[in-house]
Amino acid sequence: MHPVFFLSDFGLEDPYVGVVKAVLWEKAPGVPVLDLAHALPPQDLRRAAYALFEALPYLPEGAVVLAVVDPGVGTKRRAIAALGRRLYVGPDNGLFTLAWLLDPPIRAHEITCISPPSPKGILPLPGWAPGGYTFHGRDLFAPAAAHLALGLAAEELGPEVPAQDLIRLPLTLTPGPEGEILTFDRFGNAITTLLKAPLGSLVEVAGKRIPIRQTFGQVEAGEAVAYLGSGGLLEIALNRGNAKEALGLREGMPVVILPPPSGPPPPTDLPP
Amino acid sequence: MHPVFFLSDFGLEDPYVGVVKAVLWEKAPGVPVLDLAHALPPQDLRRAAYALFEALPYLPEGAVVLAVVDPGVGTKRRAIAALGRRLYVGPDNGLFTLAWLLDPPIRAHEITCISPPSPKGILPLPGWAPGGYTFHGRDLFAPAAAHLALGLAAEELGPEVPAQDLIRLPLTLTPGPEGEILTFDRFGNAITTLLKAPLGSLVEVAGKRIPIRQTFGQVEAGEAVAYLGSGGLLEIALNRGNAKEALGLREGMPVVILPPPSGPPPPTDLPP
Amino acid sequence: MHPVFFLSDFGLEDPYVGVVKAVLWEKAPGVPVLDLAHALPPQDLRRAAYALFEALPYLPEGAVVLAVVDPGVGTKRRAIAALGRRLYVGPDNGLFTLAWLLDPPIRAHEITCISPPSPKGILPLPGWAPGGYTFHGRDLFAPAAAHLALGLAAEELGPEVPAQDLIRLPLTLTPGPEGEILTFDRFGNAITTLLKAPLGSLVEVAGKRIPIRQTFGQVEAGEAVAYLGSGGLLEIALNRGNAKEALGLREGMPVVILPPPSGPPPPTDLPP
Repeated sequence: MHPVFFLSDFGLEDPYVGVVKAVLWEKAPGVPVLDLAHALPPQDLRRAAYALFEALPYLPEGAVVLAVVDPGVGTKRRAIAALGRRLYVGPDNGLFTLAWLLDPPIRAHEITCISPPSPKGILPLPGWAPGGYTFHGRDLFAPAAAHLALGLAAEELGPEVPAQDLIRLPLTLTPGPEGEILTFDRFGNAITTLLKAPLGSLVEVAGKRIPIRQTFGQVEAGEAVAYLGSGGLLEIALNRGNAKEALGLREGMPVVILPPPSGPPPPTDLPP
Repeated sequence: MHPVFFLSDFGLEDPYVGVVKAVLWEKAPGVPVLDLAHALPPQDLRRAAYALFEALPYLPEGAVVLAVVDPGVGTKRRAIAALGRRLYVGPDNGLFTLAWLLDPPIRAHEITCISPPSPKGILPLPGWAPGGYTFHGRDLFAPAAAHLALGLAAEELGPEVPAQDLIRLPLTLTPGPEGEILTFDRFGNAITTLLKAPLGSLVEVAGKRIPIRQTFGQVEAGEAVAYLGSGGLLEIALNRGNAKEALGLREGMPVVILPPPSGPPPPTDLPP
Repeated sequence: MHPVFFLSDFGLEDPYVGVVKAVLWEKAPGVPVLDLAHALPPQDLRRAAYALFEALPYLPEGAVVLAVVDPGVGTKRRAIAALGRRLYVGPDNGLFTLAWLLDPPIRAHEITCISPPSPKGILPLPGWAPGGYTFHGRDLFAPAAAHLALGLAAEELGPEVPAQDLIRLPLTLTPGPEGEILTFDRFGNAITTLLKAPLGSLVEVAGKRIPIRQTFGQVEAGEAVAYLGSGGLLEIALNRGNAKEALGLREGMPVVILPPPSGPPPPTDLPP
């Protein structure tokens, strides 16, 4: 049985994460379910895409990656199972864009043939049926993930979809020098689309020039610094502060790595 | 061994959830423990009762449902184990009211004969004993849940209590047309006590008339809409907004389903 | 295989907890991992030390305690594995100070010989390597914890460090009468360093005298009360309120148990 790694924006104030696990348990009893993150900002696809990228190198081959951040639930967006060296289950909305840079799907199926869990062991309530139309995590994705975790064939889930037709977010990771702010973490650190953080160089963002160091601890408290984050992307932080607020950063802002300065080090706060 | 589904308002900023799991592990090593929700609003019995109702149809028969939201801990409220098609462990304070509409207990025992976990492998601290009087999740409910998960007899937990004497909250689920606001989810959507959401009808709440649709995506951003939620109850939401705040909704407010309008559709924002 | 109890301040808005679990799974497939707490206030060593103290008596002997609250990551602080009746893995920064009062380490090793997880099953991205220098939870502590969970020898992790040289926070637990405020829980209750809560006595803090009772439910709503908390330490709370804010409490403030009053009970709000 393959382990299921489960990521969502369901939060922990409601039982939705637990219900999905109950369905996984019903369909594939004893399947190992490991939580990746459940308090992601609601419906933030870029943040979720980054979280999957950060985790991907450490997920075992054959693992099922069940990810549900789904602003389009109830619309016509497809539900998909995509097969790379891991098995991806979720909405076809770009969520896996960055993960698939590392592990591109070679085959994909739309999920159309799955039967939702059928409640058992309950008394009928007059006029009531559990359901609604908006909990695909429970009714569609969890049964599909359980199916794959059991080693069953993806083609039983529904018709094949060309892998190149799967939706991708308009995001490129690049060695630089030009990139953009991809997203933020919960501390207000900016994660960029830049794959390199050349020590001694400066990075320019929002009219500021910020030194690149090995870790954020190498500048004084309150100072801005850039460094290679744990996901292998250049990050911009304020040591013991919130870079997003203090520097006025926003998602999508351009970020440029400047050549290492010659001569005396430049001031760190120039007008643009 | 039966799986234990665990719900609480302990939050994740403190180790209480972990301590309960450690006790379950000690008393029933290897028992599968699945989290339902732990960041429920503290001491909010209606919210917890709804969370259990939402999850219940998906919990396997024989599962142990360990639920600890317990404003009365330290008072004389009873600790109970109740047996339906699942096994319920928690305070006798109405927490299971809605779950028991679907799976009514046929027998119940007060938990009086349980031995709390005895710390092992610790050095004595002069004058100290772990304990206190207020952590029944650890000292009472977790050992009782482990006992049941192992398949041991409920009658060993304490004296029988008539199932009809168990505490229920004054809540009724009804096909309508008149109901009330049961609780809210973390997005400010109102969950009502109404079991039906007839398409094309209007629902009246707080002096507003709100159209019933299949999903909340079927109205414009910022507009109010009612629909059948994932728990099978009528919910009231603001598409991409907070209905509780925007419409001035409160727990217990009356909600009425109006007959489908004839003639042209009515305005959606009438004075009361 | 020993279970791993995992505590961190990583939060659940990011995939860091999940990545650590993925590495534990890769290095020790099937190892039971039980979460102690992950939403601890970031970098708050006293709060984390208390959380470990509260949990410790309920963790089985032989368990691996993986704790990562690490303000000094990227500096020269040591990474350690310490062996008492349980196995402790984390930064050598005082995090385990209070847990070790109950289960002192008799041997310790600096973690220097561990190999970080090597990403597998990923396509090379030009110019990129997963990594960074700041995620010791993933690269150092999780592999070391997996090593110990498998029952492998601690001496393979690195050179021995005298157990008495491990860092401790300057904190003492004492039967009284004089102590201090250790930390707060998420409700604003103050947890003190006092091991006793003599019923009928008063406790003085911030110029207030507060009665000691068996539970916080024994005073009126809005009144201050002291009682023996679930960790066996004297706590100060406001019934249905936030003691930290209402009484102006701060970490480290002196707390004194006064002898039981003779004659009529004293007023509860005297000038200092």
